[in-house]
Amino acid sequence: MARVYNFSAGPSMLPEAVLRTAQAELLEYGTSGQSVMEMSHRSKYFDDIIVKTEAGIRKLLNVPDNYKIGFFQGGATQQFAMVPLNLMTTGKADYLVTGNFSNLAAKEAAKFGQVNIVASSKDRNFTYIPDVTKVEYTPDASYIHICHNNTIFGTTYQQVPQVEGIPLVADMSSDIMSMPVDVNQYGLIYFGVQKNVAPAGMAVAIVREDLLGKAPENVPTMMNYTTILEKDSMYNTPPCWCIYMTGLVVDYLQNTMGGLEKMHEINKAKAKVLYDYLDSQEFFHNPVEKEYRSLMNVTFTSPDPDMDKKFCAEAAAAGFVNLKGHRLVGGMRASIYNAMPPEGVAKLVQFMDDFRKANS
Amino acid sequence: MARVYNFSAGPSMLPEAVLRTAQAELLEYGTSGQSVMEMSHRSKYFDDIIVKTEAGIRKLLNVPDNYKIGFFQGGATQQFAMVPLNLMTTGKADYLVTGNFSNLAAKEAAKFGQVNIVASSKDRNFTYIPDVTKVEYTPDASYIHICHNNTIFGTTYQQVPQVEGIPLVADMSSDIMSMPVDVNQYGLIYFGVQKNVAPAGMAVAIVREDLLGKAPENVPTMMNYTTILEKDSMYNTPPCWCIYMTGLVVDYLQNTMGGLEKMHEINKAKAKVLYDYLDSQEFFHNPVEKEYRSLMNVTFTSPDPDMDKKFCAEAAAAGFVNLKGHRLVGGMRASIYNAMPPEGVAKLVQFMDDFRKANS
Repeated sequence: MARVYNFSAGPSMLPEAVLRTAQAELLEYGTSGQSVMEMSHRSKYFDDIIVKTEAGIRKLLNVPDNYKIGFFQGGATQQFAMVPLNLMTTGKADYLVTGNFSNLAAKEAAKFGQVNIVASSKDRNFTYIPDVTKVEYTPDASYIHICHNNTIFGTTYQQVPQVEGIPLVADMSSDIMSMPVDVNQYGLIYFGVQKNVAPAGMAVAIVREDLLGKAPENVPTMMNYTTILEKDSMYNTPPCWCIYMTGLVVDYLQNTMGGLEKMHEINKAKAKVLYDYLDSQEFFHNPVEKEYRSLMNVTFTSPDPDMDKKFCAEAAAAGFVNLKGHRLVGGMRASIYNAMPPEGVAKLVQFMDDFRKANS
Repeated sequence: MARVYNFSAGPSMLPEAVLRTAQAELLEYGTSGQSVMEMSHRSKYFDDIIVKTEAGIRKLLNVPDNYKIGFFQGGATQQFAMVPLNLMTTGKADYLVTGNFSNLAAKEAAKFGQVNIVASSKDRNFTYIPDVTKVEYTPDASYIHICHNNTIFGTTYQQVPQVEGIPLVADMSSDIMSMPVDVNQYGLIYFGVQKNVAPAGMAVAIVREDLLGKAPENVPTMMNYTTILEKDSMYNTPPCWCIYMTGLVVDYLQNTMGGLEKMHEINKAKAKVLYDYLDSQEFFHNPVEKEYRSLMNVTFTSPDPDMDKKFCAEAAAAGFVNLKGHRLVGGMRASIYNAMPPEGVAKLVQFMDDFRKANS
């Protein structure tokens, strides 16, 4: 059948041009006579791939020289443990809870020290982001942790906490590379690649150098940022295929799409089409405070759960798949990451309106 | 150029038929309209893939019902930490050191408890395996740990420790699926998939159920076997592409190659060609005691390091790549995993003999 419009929250769509390159090179990468999946991670071919991928991320995200970029395994969930294991030098840290993953990050960190939930939007079912300028941060917190875009609830920060002397740590799994980011605002940025970058199986961490070298000696080797970063992500065999695919996507975003300013414009325009439609009628409803609406994950409901179910089934049959909302929220969710083409959103809105007319 | 004979110790060759299937399905898996790299791990398509992969491993390795099979990240190195974090209930464990990775496993475990090195073959540069029946095991050791095949030194166990009441834990990264294994001899088997199974980025653990549920509460979530296994390896987004590729390889070994008894015969025959040649002349030399020679990794030297270098360069130019030995050993190493065809070994031996004649 034809390729579908896949609105999955992650893993999710990849640019078709990137998939075609991966397909063409699958048996023989360049003149190597091998698949990327077969080559020694110590070979010159793979060294070229990993160096290019790191440099590509550095350029695309404008990462300053005093930050290291590393490739890790275990997804963002493993980062939830690595952050406190490496950075919680005062034995305490501040967490802002704005959804499911920031809550899980806080719970994981509490295994290793004192976690202060200094702000939460749970009171209104995570439909907004707290005002970060009014939060009382802990003076001797080792760091402040946020989840920048909340995949399940469809919210995003517009402004991030900035406290002199306390590094900000951000999970950007669901919006990295969707827009420019001022890396200098952060001590550490991490993201699982499976939403907006590459196939599942890798997390990337961007770490300010002064935060390294402080982990206790008994931290598991694979959870020690310093050990992995000192070996340029080659302490052991890295997830080579994910690194290769990340390199292809980064190159595509930089050279085909024109960089993250342009990608941001496209993403804003895509989201506007969907939110404008949601605001223009009363059959479908988005519950998020307008100021905090995510550009990546657009949640909505129809008049009732049975109708939601009918909508998802008919949408899937029409080639719009994975629109079912997360079980914590119900309803629908359209994840419209970089690789979702504008026409996918336009056609979805047309389908929604046809459905609305047929079912009102 | 044509595909080369790739003797890399890992990542390493994959069956060409499997690569061709992956290539054909890369943009659209079955009727899903999506790449496996794009599909939600919660979708029916991926659920079918992971269930089939687990069942395929269970059948191929004849894994009894009282063992769980899980997919993890971080490679065998992460398992080096997970084993003690989950299984070291008495605070001590016995390790047999027969090479580089068993040594690293012991060092990692020493972060979490008392490690007793009950046997080592370091005295003769790891060219043999100690007699496991003569080792004095610690009566209250939580487990006994071995590395079954030593990739760097080219040795393998012929008989494994069996001590009443003490589970045996084995790293089988470099020989899993190369021959039948009696899983009942083990409490836990783990392997990184990147040598003999699939692309890098995943480890598989096969765990006897009675060993689960004993980890302390503050173990990082991603390092808790029980948590991951209770969620059928879907606690968070798993390395979907590696699982898919593992499924393809397992299916290939079972249905195209005819299972592990047959694979073992082929591997024995391949290794015999190479060892017989090594034993038939005096230019090249294999240092391993014959009884403990690995079927997967065949080490050898030429008369001197400069000649080794010349050999590797000329071999690579002739399409036999990654023959350079590990820096700890020097010389050469031919890793001849399942995917190395018999003609690759035969042609290598021919090349070696031509080289010998030209350089004697």
